Amino acid sequence: MTDRLNTGATIGILGGGQLGRMLSVAASRLGFRTHIFEPSANPPAADVAHKVTTASYEDADALAGFAASVDVITYEFENIPTSALDLLEQHKPIRPGREALRISQDRLTEKTFLQDLGLSTAAFADIADQASLDAALATIGTPSILKTRRFGYDGKGQARIKAPDDAATALSEMGGAPSILEGFVTFSHEISVIAARGVSGEIACFDPGENVHRDGILHTTTVPARLSAGQRMDAVLMAGKILNALEYVGVLGVELFVTPQGLIVNEIAPRVHNSGHWTQNGCAVDQFEQHIRAIVGWSLGDGQRHSDVVMENLIGADVDRIPELAQETRCAIHLYGKTEAKPGRKMGHVNRVQLPQT
Amino acid sequence: MTDRLNTGATIGILGGGQLGRMLSVAASRLGFRTHIFEPSANPPAADVAHKVTTASYEDADALAGFAASVDVITYEFENIPTSALDLLEQHKPIRPGREALRISQDRLTEKTFLQDLGLSTAAFADIADQASLDAALATIGTPSILKTRRFGYDGKGQARIKAPDDAATALSEMGGAPSILEGFVTFSHEISVIAARGVSGEIACFDPGENVHRDGILHTTTVPARLSAGQRMDAVLMAGKILNALEYVGVLGVELFVTPQGLIVNEIAPRVHNSGHWTQNGCAVDQFEQHIRAIVGWSLGDGQRHSDVVMENLIGADVDRIPELAQETRCAIHLYGKTEAKPGRKMGHVNRVQLPQT
Repeated sequence: MTDRLNTGATIGILGGGQLGRMLSVAASRLGFRTHIFEPSANPPAADVAHKVTTASYEDADALAGFAASVDVITYEFENIPTSALDLLEQHKPIRPGREALRISQDRLTEKTFLQDLGLSTAAFADIADQASLDAALATIGTPSILKTRRFGYDGKGQARIKAPDDAATALSEMGGAPSILEGFVTFSHEISVIAARGVSGEIACFDPGENVHRDGILHTTTVPARLSAGQRMDAVLMAGKILNALEYVGVLGVELFVTPQGLIVNEIAPRVHNSGHWTQNGCAVDQFEQHIRAIVGWSLGDGQRHSDVVMENLIGADVDRIPELAQETRCAIHLYGKTEAKPGRKMGHVNRVQLPQT
Repeated sequence: MTDRLNTGATIGILGGGQLGRMLSVAASRLGFRTHIFEPSANPPAADVAHKVTTASYEDADALAGFAASVDVITYEFENIPTSALDLLEQHKPIRPGREALRISQDRLTEKTFLQDLGLSTAAFADIADQASLDAALATIGTPSILKTRRFGYDGKGQARIKAPDDAATALSEMGGAPSILEGFVTFSHEISVIAARGVSGEIACFDPGENVHRDGILHTTTVPARLSAGQRMDAVLMAGKILNALEYVGVLGVELFVTPQGLIVNEIAPRVHNSGHWTQNGCAVDQFEQHIRAIVGWSLGDGQRHSDVVMENLIGADVDRIPELAQETRCAIHLYGKTEAKPGRKMGHVNRVQLPQT
């Protein structure tokens, strides 16, 4: 692959959900075509993609055919089977690279990586069984949270331990999966930094957004976040440190807790991130385009914000509010084309553009 | 068809160029699928559409199949063969309706319609031959412009008559096509209003943009346009008059000349319009989404602008400037995925978002 892909090249995207869908639209704005690889039929991204392969990640022929038809491969989620990645990378570059995936696929590896970089995290310990959990609770204390090391998202695979008595129940909820115990962090609010690193190592960050969750799922992101200038700078420097350590290419989401002792990294996601959706209506170059620019070797947008935005996720039956939302002023609607509105399912989001106070 | 289509419905779009492409992306944002009908292979819109039919407008079977697969039909250009429209409207509603197409397909019909509404236009006369041209020149005078009544765009099918001696040459340039002579209008600048009317008759206008042409092709649109409050109001009222007279559903572009004697209508286009591309980065609801909202029976966005924008078209070799443009601050790039950059060909545009003066 040359360092810079030209208009007309094809970007392969692993995963056809809403992130793949919005990546596909952003790619088209720069004149690129997309080819989506997704096991389930009629995924959201299929409506706006040049081509779709419906196949399992175990289907070597389908993976090879997909790789042959694209110029670079990216992904919308981090839990891609290793065997598929091994096969794909023989054919075409995968961006962001394998190291970012290896680290973010496992909470223990991720926390260890962050700690080794000198970044603050919650206290944590590897949990294999009741004995290691008891030992960890003795140092980390309660309240604390037991989480599966892999495949957790949106609050799934987590159990809170309020007191040592909850330990056995929490462990059984993990179903025998390798787990990690995380100490409880007292924070005033959560922010996230959507940061990008280009092929030649340049870094660009969007302004940090302030996140509010509901039932373990992101509810709103407000930009700008409540942060001092010093905290803002810290957030950007921390994100930059992570990007450089991973020799990262693409967009990375970093969730941070704001505490009196400084910023503490909650988790990182090696992809575009729900808390970066506000950029679609607050910046000339949004996180999806930024990601595409990075992986095709274009120069990054500078991340400058032209408008303040409040992003609100539409979860499940929230989509029934679309008729009213459509009548709001400066409310940009983004739906994912999902027909069935199950509880907890991300159906879309709105970005409310805020006018400057006069 | 019910008055309001829901997410998941399919919108049929006649024409797969850049306007069809951007309509398709806007439709996806509201959760709709698109089906593109386009005679030429691999059109720009195909990269972001759920389905594409490649067939001629004379192919009755293809038209019927297309109509059967969609819930409503719209178009990206006004010169659709009447026979195709006759067939399509037997199956599904066409929005905007036939009357808008009938009027805008013929410059003479259009000018007459505008005049009958009481709106100012350039002086004009129907030209069939040398005799009628001579007679028209006697009243309209020179300089004036001879134009084919049908199928003209971007300055094509036009000949300027600087003095009566040019008349014969100009007429021969029309190649025997029915033509119209238009008097020359002395104007300070050109503006356009992108206006929309919904199924239930509500109207919403975007702020007028100021247009600069180069070689007969739109070069830039700047918003806000230089207009007094009174002119701004006139522009909106004129657009509203046109929309209501046509019982229009969708987005309509109205080009106006600003003269000391008031606003003069240059032409109307029954579709999204190049001079409305700025809305993609200046408004929460852009012209493409506004058009989709109208034709699916949703409430219209109110057209409010959150940012000032300068739109610049990228024509032909202008796309070679993309590497530099990609490095500009607050410069949103929109490419159409066309691989061959012929002279005069619209390859993309950029929207430069302007920050408020502080």
